[in-house]
Amino acid sequence: MKKFTVLFALLLMCAMTFAQQALWGGAPVVSPEIHDDNTVTFRLKAPKAVKVQLTGDFLPPHTIQTPRGEYDAPGIVDMKEGKDGVWEYTTAEPLNPELYGYSFYVDGLKIMDPGNVYMIRDVATVTNVFIIGGDRADLYKVNKVPHGTVRRMWYNSPTLGMDRRLTVYTPAGYENGKKRYPVFYLLHGAGGDEEAWIALGRTSQILDNLIAQGKAEPMIVVMTNGNGWQDAAPGESPKGFTVPSMSPKERASAPEGGFELSFPEVVKFVEKNFRTLPNKKHRAIAGLSMGGFHSCSISKYYPDMFDYVGLFSGTASRNDKSTCPVYTDFEDKLKIQFAKTPALYFIACGNRDFVFKGVTDFRKLLDDNGCKYEYLETGEGHIWRNWRIYLTEFVPKLFK
Amino acid sequence: MKKFTVLFALLLMCAMTFAQQALWGGAPVVSPEIHDDNTVTFRLKAPKAVKVQLTGDFLPPHTIQTPRGEYDAPGIVDMKEGKDGVWEYTTAEPLNPELYGYSFYVDGLKIMDPGNVYMIRDVATVTNVFIIGGDRADLYKVNKVPHGTVRRMWYNSPTLGMDRRLTVYTPAGYENGKKRYPVFYLLHGAGGDEEAWIALGRTSQILDNLIAQGKAEPMIVVMTNGNGWQDAAPGESPKGFTVPSMSPKERASAPEGGFELSFPEVVKFVEKNFRTLPNKKHRAIAGLSMGGFHSCSISKYYPDMFDYVGLFSGTASRNDKSTCPVYTDFEDKLKIQFAKTPALYFIACGNRDFVFKGVTDFRKLLDDNGCKYEYLETGEGHIWRNWRIYLTEFVPKLFK
Repeated sequence: MKKFTVLFALLLMCAMTFAQQALWGGAPVVSPEIHDDNTVTFRLKAPKAVKVQLTGDFLPPHTIQTPRGEYDAPGIVDMKEGKDGVWEYTTAEPLNPELYGYSFYVDGLKIMDPGNVYMIRDVATVTNVFIIGGDRADLYKVNKVPHGTVRRMWYNSPTLGMDRRLTVYTPAGYENGKKRYPVFYLLHGAGGDEEAWIALGRTSQILDNLIAQGKAEPMIVVMTNGNGWQDAAPGESPKGFTVPSMSPKERASAPEGGFELSFPEVVKFVEKNFRTLPNKKHRAIAGLSMGGFHSCSISKYYPDMFDYVGLFSGTASRNDKSTCPVYTDFEDKLKIQFAKTPALYFIACGNRDFVFKGVTDFRKLLDDNGCKYEYLETGEGHIWRNWRIYLTEFVPKLFK
Repeated sequence: MKKFTVLFALLLMCAMTFAQQALWGGAPVVSPEIHDDNTVTFRLKAPKAVKVQLTGDFLPPHTIQTPRGEYDAPGIVDMKEGKDGVWEYTTAEPLNPELYGYSFYVDGLKIMDPGNVYMIRDVATVTNVFIIGGDRADLYKVNKVPHGTVRRMWYNSPTLGMDRRLTVYTPAGYENGKKRYPVFYLLHGAGGDEEAWIALGRTSQILDNLIAQGKAEPMIVVMTNGNGWQDAAPGESPKGFTVPSMSPKERASAPEGGFELSFPEVVKFVEKNFRTLPNKKHRAIAGLSMGGFHSCSISKYYPDMFDYVGLFSGTASRNDKSTCPVYTDFEDKLKIQFAKTPALYFIACGNRDFVFKGVTDFRKLLDDNGCKYEYLETGEGHIWRNWRIYLTEFVPKLFK
């Protein structure tokens, strides 16, 4: 048996040798390094580079003028070459608690950090991420608390004529229990899909943590795909590994308002497959940007379906000329919805957001009609940092 | 209402404007481009680069000599600069159907393809991937077939003293049904975790497709974390965004044979939470490399638990000097297991694999003892291409 004795050790060692090579090449430097005082050092070994820069949403933004107004783009700073061709940059100040994204530019070529395997895709771009813990950002971390289950599953939509993928979070205790739970439907923005809230939104971590702290009711969270022309996130459908796009050609193929019209098919699927409390009092819907628009449309078109509504950086009617029943009679539908006094109508927006004026106008309309809502205004613009904040503020208000 | 009319269009357009910029920067060139004849063109815009190379597992490998023998490393080729600083390489021959991985080297710096958002992590390295369809590789694609559900969930292990994460595939029809299903436990190798088989192994696609074709029984597949010292994949545990490693310091903290000893805790959890057929006839276990070693150890230590056993590029005893009951009396335990005539004992290995000799020795031991097994020998070495093949060969043999 001696001949078998060392095989396991060999397995490990050989794999480790491999790990130094070619496709399995390891990271030569530590990056990012989060110091005890929450300053962060970024490093990249690039001995032949002439110029290396860092861009990230923690750097002072620079304002870009466009025909449609100005917006804040993430800042860029030069990194400095040290010994062995390792370029380095340390933040001037400690970073506030937050989930941050960053990339490098090497002689103008944008690359990801080979020292950091943690990346998140946002539409067609992938960036490295890291978390500075503390305060609200502790909600974005995996902590030693009971964890819920995250399912990727498929439902059939007769209205849209396809099987469609969705992401479902069930809270700790759901598995093998008997209790029924309220359901929160959480919708993504344009360019997103059923992966957006679970990846960039940190939904499962936020829910695990808020529930463990007793700040939120245990609930099921359903993250749909809001693109009526699409069955699943890029790479997860029979279309294969397509290039994600903000303006795909397929968009025109979807029936107008089809996603909103078909929403009861999602609710029906969820209530058939999960132990839910299947009534208005125990249903919430919210979304960011286009998902806020969807939440507005769906909740007023089906005014007996949701008692809690959240619009995160998004509002308003799509097209007054539309004959799609979801969009017609905008104000009348709003009035009917509010006459039924929803338990919560929540609006949140950043005051640097390009939709801020639209949101302000929408609030005025609600005020003029005596419609009651809660409003949260934050700094900054149309960014995930805000949407995570809105999620952590909205969820504790639900089902109480 | 006019003022709200255009907001939705604006939402989309602004986001598209953003998409050209900074952190949201889009890909300037199409890469990879798979042509109709299955040749593939790779492109990278890097006007300031002096030398750009492509490495990938579809290129002729080059053999590297190490003190432990030789092994095949993925090949590297030079790319050629065309106009506008776009470097290009087209494969000389059409590629065979397969899931491939690749990266670029820009003046020696290894980077990922900014034109391709599809990447898979293997231990501490992330590479871009693409699929050439046809033949067996069609099993690795998402096709228009009924899809199962993939859950990420947590179970408690008293033996290992922690909550631990696992990935569970349930076949199409499981949700909202009443039928009970057999269970296949599928284990990763050293450096892997509960994400390995679902990501690099394409387990959910392979199962969806084999089941839809009537070639495999509908079954539940449970992908555990086989690192006794680890509660979850890197980034998914309270340890945060750590650097994945083949030889982590924590390894020493795990009890010897702890994962194998604790395996009935996984089985118990699965049989409590899923509609299973809870008997030996309806349980299978298989794994790659270290996971093959685990499958061997677990199935002989618990000889009444699994009727189907698969060792993919892995075998044999860890340590004859060990006093851990999982590892003692290796041959006696094997004899007891085979005296109970398992429905299938399946061994597969590549003839260029560094464990090939160990596997050959193990087969001789089985032969000498009259133990019956099925054997599949392929070309190449210790690589995922082989493990996907073994999975597609093993699964149709189960539960029939």
